[in-house]
Amino acid sequence: MEKKTEFVEAIVDKSKDFSRWYTDVVVKAQLADYSPIKGCMVIRPYGYALWEKIQSLLNARIKATGHQNAYFPLFVPEGLLAREAEHIEGFSPEVAWVTEAGSEKLEERLAIRPTSEAIICSMYAKWIDSWRDLPILINQWANIVRWERVTRLFLRTTEFLWQEGHTAHCTEKEAEEEALKMLGVYKDFIENDLAIPVLTGEKTEREKFAGALRTYSLEALMADGKALQTGTSHNLGQHFAKVFNITFQDMDEKRKYVWQTSWGVSTRLIGAIIMTHGDDSGLVLPPKIAPVQVIIIPIWGREEEKEIVASRVEEVERLLKAAYEVEVDWRSEYTPGWKFNEWELKGVPLRLEIGPKDVAKKQVVLVRRDTREKEFVSEEKVARRVGVLLDEIQADLFKRAKKFRNDNTRPASRIDEMEAILSEHRGFILASWCGSPDCEEKVKEKTMATIRCIPLGKRQAGKCVVCGKRGWAVYFSRAY
Amino acid sequence: MEKKTEFVEAIVDKSKDFSRWYTDVVVKAQLADYSPIKGCMVIRPYGYALWEKIQSLLNARIKATGHQNAYFPLFVPEGLLAREAEHIEGFSPEVAWVTEAGSEKLEERLAIRPTSEAIICSMYAKWIDSWRDLPILINQWANIVRWERVTRLFLRTTEFLWQEGHTAHCTEKEAEEEALKMLGVYKDFIENDLAIPVLTGEKTEREKFAGALRTYSLEALMADGKALQTGTSHNLGQHFAKVFNITFQDMDEKRKYVWQTSWGVSTRLIGAIIMTHGDDSGLVLPPKIAPVQVIIIPIWGREEEKEIVASRVEEVERLLKAAYEVEVDWRSEYTPGWKFNEWELKGVPLRLEIGPKDVAKKQVVLVRRDTREKEFVSEEKVARRVGVLLDEIQADLFKRAKKFRNDNTRPASRIDEMEAILSEHRGFILASWCGSPDCEEKVKEKTMATIRCIPLGKRQAGKCVVCGKRGWAVYFSRAY
Repeated sequence: MEKKTEFVEAIVDKSKDFSRWYTDVVVKAQLADYSPIKGCMVIRPYGYALWEKIQSLLNARIKATGHQNAYFPLFVPEGLLAREAEHIEGFSPEVAWVTEAGSEKLEERLAIRPTSEAIICSMYAKWIDSWRDLPILINQWANIVRWERVTRLFLRTTEFLWQEGHTAHCTEKEAEEEALKMLGVYKDFIENDLAIPVLTGEKTEREKFAGALRTYSLEALMADGKALQTGTSHNLGQHFAKVFNITFQDMDEKRKYVWQTSWGVSTRLIGAIIMTHGDDSGLVLPPKIAPVQVIIIPIWGREEEKEIVASRVEEVERLLKAAYEVEVDWRSEYTPGWKFNEWELKGVPLRLEIGPKDVAKKQVVLVRRDTREKEFVSEEKVARRVGVLLDEIQADLFKRAKKFRNDNTRPASRIDEMEAILSEHRGFILASWCGSPDCEEKVKEKTMATIRCIPLGKRQAGKCVVCGKRGWAVYFSRAY
Repeated sequence: MEKKTEFVEAIVDKSKDFSRWYTDVVVKAQLADYSPIKGCMVIRPYGYALWEKIQSLLNARIKATGHQNAYFPLFVPEGLLAREAEHIEGFSPEVAWVTEAGSEKLEERLAIRPTSEAIICSMYAKWIDSWRDLPILINQWANIVRWERVTRLFLRTTEFLWQEGHTAHCTEKEAEEEALKMLGVYKDFIENDLAIPVLTGEKTEREKFAGALRTYSLEALMADGKALQTGTSHNLGQHFAKVFNITFQDMDEKRKYVWQTSWGVSTRLIGAIIMTHGDDSGLVLPPKIAPVQVIIIPIWGREEEKEIVASRVEEVERLLKAAYEVEVDWRSEYTPGWKFNEWELKGVPLRLEIGPKDVAKKQVVLVRRDTREKEFVSEEKVARRVGVLLDEIQADLFKRAKKFRNDNTRPASRIDEMEAILSEHRGFILASWCGSPDCEEKVKEKTMATIRCIPLGKRQAGKCVVCGKRGWAVYFSRAY
């Protein structure tokens, strides 16, 4: 029983030290671990199982919207990467370069892809010839390297995993529709499956993707009041088409440049899940992406009891396995209490206990991870009840996160008001901005908040928080 | 119609120039394309769909045998890679090195993983403490870089995709059982799903993995008579455990080194599928891994006919979609003949034609890709018949490949006999070898054949083809 206490004390309180709490959860729940390479993490089986869930749910949506997966090289020759001026300027400070192979020095440095626009565009130039070849709708799941100075497990790592969609279209309108469609696909996925509410909108010139015409993003509010960008979708316009010479013969027989988009989400989403739903006991996973949805803990004292409990546990396990991800913790070297703590730390949405008394009463005990609510359910109703509870947990997590987001979104009309709000509460601030980079910069200097996004649709007029000139409402926040 | 001829002429005859035939099939069927980086290919959507099928079928087997997926960093610091002497010696000629990041020069070079033993062992040393932590059964799907001088699409590329399993055990016996179990899993998968017969056995000292105690491999015979290693499974012994200091406290309270295995298959399997089953018209895909199992070609002349045909096609499509991967080729800019050629090139196992006459007779036409056999099937029987035919094609492809392999496996008792066989037929040669590296080398010099594997089980005694001393039967072949 010594081990138990040791275990529980290992996580810092969320309210006491959010940053350490986060790292504790990631490491102790065995989602990821530090590796011998600075800034690179190892994604352990439990964390990778989360990523597999994300992949499978998002992949289905990406395919349902007509995209196909493919795989492009890890390397981007320096010359290719440098072709689009804004692009290389934006990425060069964080590129890792291969300069040697075997015992040779390479003639041209090879970038480890910090993103794949350049390499993919070089192929699109070869593949696209006529309007019949368009649209090209390709996605790839891949590893990406960006040499970051300050790293955090899942949130910002030198190497990370992501998917990146890259499409080419005949017209500007089609490209814009695609960029917005994928923003919608991400929103649907992040809100419905990850139970994380997101604001969507356009990025300012300063915050947009290097080489894009327009960047759209999804912004979530973490439990510490800081914003996290959970995904982006870019209308690339014809910037890349022009430098990579990607043209097609249109129906009017004229040669034209294509219009492009790119969009991506990454393993950072796992950080968002932790920081949105987690509590002092650890991870809280939304049922739709939980690798284990129900953990069954058999409880027995004497050896004879174990047998009685076992046959009932196997029956319930069989019943639930048809529809849910279920595991049974049969380990005899740990007490039930120790196991409760461990599976709470791992965020399993529902705990199911069966002890000798429950067997006698033909019941099981169900305990929700999010609310700790406990209920006794008769055996014949358990499968249906588990389904209802999992749906409820999924919906409640979203509702709770949305309430938190709304409660922490405040209006402000002057910059000193922003400072006051941010020093006390953090969260989103809905305030007006005139559109000038100087005013944007001034807000950042004074408050450490940046413009997260300009809401889509009809702009809401107001006076700029800095200069007082005519502007429109945007979301500010301190961000990861 | 001009386009049609152009299309058919584009593939060289398999018997005329096997190597060019292979490249033609890969490129024209749009499985892969050359990239701007020497030796790196782009896996196009149709090729990647094949890889996704391979991943999903093999992943299910890997998980069913108790393994979990995880993800380890792309980079291996030079010092880590160099710890195991044989390992670094084997891999250093083909390692790509990152030496710069952003504008800095790195203090230690980072290898792009040529395989992940070193990085994974460094983590296992951290994670393993007691016999309770064992076995560790982890697999990862990842990209790998080996700087190859001569490359071939799918068969040998600078970057490739693979899975690599890495396990650690308490005892030598368990590690040996694991290495052989995974060899069996691969054999089952490659023979049953890819329809490729494989010989399994042990590698000689010269051919084994750098750092392994014993390497087992799977060897297939390609249609040009050359062998292709389609997968390997290594018993690593305690080599890595000792240099990475991976120890555990055993039940007897003694500190011991773990016993390890590693095993992998790669995108090379796609090359094996092409070279085993393909013919002069292109790819021939085993139904179990075909991204499209049935291609429906509607045939119409006048516009009124199209409507009549369409409603029947949609009905059949709906019927088949419930159980099979089905597509309909509705393109109007190509003739049916052109479409037949294209889908043959792409290796779709079954073609289903419906024209006005078929509608009148309430029938469809089914054509097998492998034998070109054509049959008329009444509409109500089509779903069942498709299932039967797909099973038959799967079984027949394996049977045909196995017959080819057996017909091209010949005994030899002297080296000149080997030379004669190889100059005329290629294929496998079952001949005896005394176990000496000199004799192994001599065979290679004289015949360009290497020992592919030493069959498992009871060894069959005989006289060495080179020195005449006592030896045992092994498989020789020229190889990719």
